[in-house]
Amino acid sequence: MTLSKPPMPVVQPLPPGLVTLDDHEAHARTQLDSNAWAYFSGGAADEITLHANRRAWNQLQLLPRVLRPLDSAHTQIQLLGRTLAHPLLVAPMAWQQMAHADGELAMAHAAAAQAAGLVLSTQASRPLTTVAQAFGAYPERGPLWFQLYMQADRGFTRELAQRARDAGYEALVLTVDAPVSGARDRERRAGFRLPPGVASVNLAGAPPSDAPLEAAATWADVEWLCSAAQLPVILKGVLHPDDARQAAGLGVSAVVVSNHGGRVLDTVVTTAQSLSGVVDAIGGDLPVLVDGGIRRGTDVFKALALGASAVMVGRPCLWGLANAGAVGVAHVLRLLRDEFEMAMLLCGCREPASISRSMVIANAMDSHL
Amino acid sequence: MTLSKPPMPVVQPLPPGLVTLDDHEAHARTQLDSNAWAYFSGGAADEITLHANRRAWNQLQLLPRVLRPLDSAHTQIQLLGRTLAHPLLVAPMAWQQMAHADGELAMAHAAAAQAAGLVLSTQASRPLTTVAQAFGAYPERGPLWFQLYMQADRGFTRELAQRARDAGYEALVLTVDAPVSGARDRERRAGFRLPPGVASVNLAGAPPSDAPLEAAATWADVEWLCSAAQLPVILKGVLHPDDARQAAGLGVSAVVVSNHGGRVLDTVVTTAQSLSGVVDAIGGDLPVLVDGGIRRGTDVFKALALGASAVMVGRPCLWGLANAGAVGVAHVLRLLRDEFEMAMLLCGCREPASISRSMVIANAMDSHL
Amino acid sequence: MTLSKPPMPVVQPLPPGLVTLDDHEAHARTQLDSNAWAYFSGGAADEITLHANRRAWNQLQLLPRVLRPLDSAHTQIQLLGRTLAHPLLVAPMAWQQMAHADGELAMAHAAAAQAAGLVLSTQASRPLTTVAQAFGAYPERGPLWFQLYMQADRGFTRELAQRARDAGYEALVLTVDAPVSGARDRERRAGFRLPPGVASVNLAGAPPSDAPLEAAATWADVEWLCSAAQLPVILKGVLHPDDARQAAGLGVSAVVVSNHGGRVLDTVVTTAQSLSGVVDAIGGDLPVLVDGGIRRGTDVFKALALGASAVMVGRPCLWGLANAGAVGVAHVLRLLRDEFEMAMLLCGCREPASISRSMVIANAMDSHL
Amino acid sequence: MTLSKPPMPVVQPLPPGLVTLDDHEAHARTQLDSNAWAYFSGGAADEITLHANRRAWNQLQLLPRVLRPLDSAHTQIQLLGRTLAHPLLVAPMAWQQMAHADGELAMAHAAAAQAAGLVLSTQASRPLTTVAQAFGAYPERGPLWFQLYMQADRGFTRELAQRARDAGYEALVLTVDAPVSGARDRERRAGFRLPPGVASVNLAGAPPSDAPLEAAATWADVEWLCSAAQLPVILKGVLHPDDARQAAGLGVSAVVVSNHGGRVLDTVVTTAQSLSGVVDAIGGDLPVLVDGGIRRGTDVFKALALGASAVMVGRPCLWGLANAGAVGVAHVLRLLRDEFEMAMLLCGCREPASISRSMVIANAMDSHL
Repeated sequence: MTLSKPPMPVVQPLPPGLVTLDDHEAHARTQLDSNAWAYFSGGAADEITLHANRRAWNQLQLLPRVLRPLDSAHTQIQLLGRTLAHPLLVAPMAWQQMAHADGELAMAHAAAAQAAGLVLSTQASRPLTTVAQAFGAYPERGPLWFQLYMQADRGFTRELAQRARDAGYEALVLTVDAPVSGARDRERRAGFRLPPGVASVNLAGAPPSDAPLEAAATWADVEWLCSAAQLPVILKGVLHPDDARQAAGLGVSAVVVSNHGGRVLDTVVTTAQSLSGVVDAIGGDLPVLVDGGIRRGTDVFKALALGASAVMVGRPCLWGLANAGAVGVAHVLRLLRDEFEMAMLLCGCREPASISRSMVIANAMDSHL
Repeated sequence: MTLSKPPMPVVQPLPPGLVTLDDHEAHARTQLDSNAWAYFSGGAADEITLHANRRAWNQLQLLPRVLRPLDSAHTQIQLLGRTLAHPLLVAPMAWQQMAHADGELAMAHAAAAQAAGLVLSTQASRPLTTVAQAFGAYPERGPLWFQLYMQADRGFTRELAQRARDAGYEALVLTVDAPVSGARDRERRAGFRLPPGVASVNLAGAPPSDAPLEAAATWADVEWLCSAAQLPVILKGVLHPDDARQAAGLGVSAVVVSNHGGRVLDTVVTTAQSLSGVVDAIGGDLPVLVDGGIRRGTDVFKALALGASAVMVGRPCLWGLANAGAVGVAHVLRLLRDEFEMAMLLCGCREPASISRSMVIANAMDSHL
Repeated sequence: MTLSKPPMPVVQPLPPGLVTLDDHEAHARTQLDSNAWAYFSGGAADEITLHANRRAWNQLQLLPRVLRPLDSAHTQIQLLGRTLAHPLLVAPMAWQQMAHADGELAMAHAAAAQAAGLVLSTQASRPLTTVAQAFGAYPERGPLWFQLYMQADRGFTRELAQRARDAGYEALVLTVDAPVSGARDRERRAGFRLPPGVASVNLAGAPPSDAPLEAAATWADVEWLCSAAQLPVILKGVLHPDDARQAAGLGVSAVVVSNHGGRVLDTVVTTAQSLSGVVDAIGGDLPVLVDGGIRRGTDVFKALALGASAVMVGRPCLWGLANAGAVGVAHVLRLLRDEFEMAMLLCGCREPASISRSMVIANAMDSHL
Repeated sequence: MTLSKPPMPVVQPLPPGLVTLDDHEAHARTQLDSNAWAYFSGGAADEITLHANRRAWNQLQLLPRVLRPLDSAHTQIQLLGRTLAHPLLVAPMAWQQMAHADGELAMAHAAAAQAAGLVLSTQASRPLTTVAQAFGAYPERGPLWFQLYMQADRGFTRELAQRARDAGYEALVLTVDAPVSGARDRERRAGFRLPPGVASVNLAGAPPSDAPLEAAATWADVEWLCSAAQLPVILKGVLHPDDARQAAGLGVSAVVVSNHGGRVLDTVVTTAQSLSGVVDAIGGDLPVLVDGGIRRGTDVFKALALGASAVMVGRPCLWGLANAGAVGVAHVLRLLRDEFEMAMLLCGCREPASISRSMVIANAMDSHL
């Protein structure tokens, strides 16, 4: 893909004192207005799953091996036929211009510069072509995927997929866990409104639809999309092993174990807890990715130990974006890469392929963690 | 049942900012005096079960299915020979005039308007005929049941049941979990007194009794009531599978798994935990209902997943009543209906009949939830 | 036993607002100086077992039965050949004059008036004869036992046991769980000192001993005491089933599952958790009593459901004593009796003999209780 | 080993009110500057393991035996061919002069005076010869070991081991759980810097190395060290049973179950939880030691009950050092010895050899402890 010079985000300094992803979150809270904060940080209903997602990773205990050779260590993985520098992708998130004027553009630059993958949301506030141009300019960049909600008008859906393919996106990530909106009580209390100037620009021209469920995707739609899209199709939001099996039988290329970051259905099972079941069901056939609550390199390690091929990271990248634009996102991804490599080495693994399930103790640590 | 124009409750505006049932509770605390608050919100002794009831629902995890057809979705259920718009009933609660001048009258209007069922308490502060008249005026209304404590004078008990039947009540709900009052320590500390003008008007004329246990119902009384009542008899307060089996053998029409909202015996098993055992014992023979700690549509979904046919909701309706009379109750029921429907759709169910036990993970989430 | 008029404790009014044993504790904290509070309320080391004892009872869940006949209900039990009005005994506690000028005298009057049993501590601050005289004057009184630490001088030990027998004590309770003092860090921080005028008056004349372990009882001492004492011997402080078996083989009359109220060895198993093992080992042969953390009638019920014949209650009686002398103790015991009877009835039991193990769910409620 | 008069540390008074090791920690916080406090007290990342280490000991419950003979009680153990007065050793800790001007010198005097063992860190701030001289002057002293990080230059490593042997160190403790530094976020936030005048004096002259992983030890290095060192080699930082088995096959003399005090890899398994697995794997062949979170004599007892031969104690000795130099360290060790002896006696053991695994209940107490 030959690309002209991409638009560059503003380079701004990193605020001092940001040592962890949690530091980024705490700082972002001071940067975002209450409208954006409620939208980005909130979860569904009582936010039980929002918090449980993260705690579930913490509660898995590591059982490291010692004295293994660690020279020539690297974090490379194989995913959908490509060798990637590490197993991190930026999860799809809507309207990133609410976090920073550079929005998805800064996110793309930072992800690409950090050799991470990028999944652009259907509800991006920047044109998918501009984002692809920025991302594609980095030779070490990870995969570029386009996240899709099935639109009420299937013709528009197909056209959108086609635009993504033309722009260089390498796969479609169909989100299947939100046929209706969740109970976003925090947003309702905050009276969330999309700020002026922020819009789902890639959906411009979509025919209006009054029946929301009309748009909800079904297995038949997945089959249709697999045949129509001319791109690998990845299902995002699979938690039940039987659904994973069904997906594997229909020609999808990967599944993402996800509960939408706890934003849609509260008290749904955590991704750390459901990952094993999905891997056991289809791990030998399809790559399984996971997101939800990943905040530490040890979380990435645990996900891979439980059988994930790669992980998606969402909100932390937004905090980085809010804190320092592209520089902030890059810092977040860098921290996570470094922590992941450190966790690998400290568990006696010189490469992701050496990570084994026996290095994680499945029965949770006590519940205070 | 032909009804004259029923008395109408005052229409008052809903206070702003009420997005969840918990919001209703927090607001009601500012509306009720300490006497009424202690009575309605309190539980037995250390209120361990009061709080555990709710937490037990939260700790059940959902395991949704995806990509199922969701068109023509509805929340209808079958119960005792009727098709109901949804599985919600208002639980029996005494002296509702302590919460709002309209008391049981407003509750009846709101429940009927929301197509919910209504269970009127023996200790209602409004005449059972007036309540039945109000409730019956709504064509979409759910079932109308009368809750009964066995009275010391069995003749009076039979006469009371007859009055209920004549007024249009469709079943008797015999409460069996409170042969004596519980240790209502919070009320005792608050020096609870029934306010002037509030009384158990439907018990007027009951012969006085000095021996409280004389009135406690036994299995023999259940048999007597089943034969004497000319109405279906439902047992409320069953927790032990063996008691459920015995009930099924005696001709009762349904059982309600209940611990009286944690108001009678502290540290008793939660209803979420005991529901499965009762369903396993008699679920094929009799409808099983459940109450206690239902605050979210996901709780309703989980109850049905564990085998309940319908659920009763108590205190939240009282909070709605205290906050805005009939409008408040209707808002509470509407929130719960909407959340339940959303939970169904997000779990891949287009109707309650599609909800299966495999969609709930029985081993609890960690105990911080 | 013919008794002259016993010395009477001062009758003082009960402070208002005491509805539960916890209320008594909170009020006693305002009545006792920091020295006495540290001594009575403290536990060993980090007080983990002190708190766990109580939580363990709370975490057991009740599974009540309904609709059983409850007429002629009573709380009577059989213990060591006697019929007792209820299963409560006052546990042995040292130096009760630190809590109230009437000390053990008020405790004895109140316990006897409430038909409870009384176990007088070796370290009582009142003469054992005076206490026995006060206690024995009540015809409905429960059993009167004397708690014994093995003294370094076995001759003095035998003489002490003889004095107790002569004064009307019906059994000896040999404490076996404190061969050395525990780490009473709270007392050490508070600089605990026995106040002037308070002393172990029944140990006056005991030969001094420099080697504390010399006094520690062994199984041989138990055999000696059983043969020498001319009174039933009860072992207090047994937690291990094997120790219970050994006790049963040596001629002791009962065992008390106890961890000394969490005062001696921290992180020792809770009594609620170890009770079943001891009952399984010897429950068919010997009565098993239990103490530690009993604060509610439901705790008494659970202890009996797990196989205990009776329970001992310690600190709460001291709080009653500090709050209102004999009147306070009587109030504490009355609350517990009433709550226990209420728990029985609400679980469908009209007498303690109807309480069954199936009414308690052994796997704990979640750990927040 | 004949020794000239060793340098003596300053004798300073013990601050009042220090009754437990926790008291020492709280006081030390007031004595150390924020730089030293962050370094000594901090753990890796979110400090989950740091806290879990300690809680894991607390959650093990003791099941004592009673009425056993306790005369002639002692705390002596056998370790690597020596009879030791008790099973406590001071864990290796870097740069102790940051805690007190006397640094490792005071630590050595206090440990030796308390008959404890001492493990000197490679990163000690005092010469290993001076420390050995001080320690060796006490006839009752425990073992003196030298902790080793494999240095990038193997020749320097061998030379360092040789110096230690010449100075009287009896074993080498090779730390294997930190091939790279952990995520010491607290230190990074505090901007930790080694203060002027504090240095790893025993590493003076080590050839510089740019590739940190080059220094990381492997199993081959362990074999080399075992053959080259002319001293017993002990592996510190083993958690996985398979690693323990491999160590046993290579000629090492003991292993230490350790997670580096939670300082290197967060969410790693606690030492209390992994001890049993290692003991089961090699306990019959090699002594197993353990450290991490030992704060009470009951913790020492539990470690021995789970199969440890001895325990290492780290931070608490540093708190003692910060609080009162050698006097403070001696006080910390004395408290722990006394508490351990008390725990033994209260569990019915007159010597460590009587401690059995059946005296600890492996399933944890509830998670609030």
